[in-house]
Amino acid sequence: MNKINITDIFSSIKKYWEPEVVANLNGHVLRAIKGQGELGWHQHNDQDKLITVYKGQLILEFRTEEIILNSGEMYIVPKGIEHCPKATCETHFTILEPNSL
Amino acid sequence: MNKINITDIFSSIKKYWEPEVVANLNGHVLRAIKGQGELGWHQHNDQDKLITVYKGQLILEFRTEEIILNSGEMYIVPKGIEHCPKATCETHFTILEPNSL
Repeated sequence: MNKINITDIFSSIKKYWEPEVVANLNGHVLRAIKGQGELGWHQHNDQDKLITVYKGQLILEFRTEEIILNSGEMYIVPKGIEHCPKATCETHFTILEPNSL
Repeated sequence: MNKINITDIFSSIKKYWEPEVVANLNGHVLRAIKGQGELGWHQHNDQDKLITVYKGQLILEFRTEEIILNSGEMYIVPKGIEHCPKATCETHFTILEPNSL
């Protein structure tokens, strides 16, 4: 088992909104994402997702509110809730979710 | 659902090596730990644990090697492997694990 350096992983990501696997454990997967612009509206029907922002600012637009996450902030996006992630500057974040899908 | 600020959570922790729950999702729990000194040898028989260091330096002593984790570094401690976490300065880290135990 090697150490994982999250900064190095973000540096290696070439495309926005394309997740890179960081770690797998106990049926869950941690993915790193570099985002800028808008991903589009979507929802996850069967799983909650834990988002952790490492750099920049992630805007989570929901139908009834907007959540702004800065570096060091986390948020659980509940299953079945439509949302649209956005970032006005280059933003680095991770998503933790079950890897069953 | 509220935002989670990991820095605020570490600030609120009063005792070393006593985990504070940060988030629960999909049967997993994320805990924040403030460590300094030595926790002692132990092992987790049934689950892998993902450690993420936010501040300071966590030394994971195993029987055959030593892993040193600085801020921004992660490591999966495999189930069933004896280890002893240590920190020479105040160190902030999280552990992700199933919450079934």
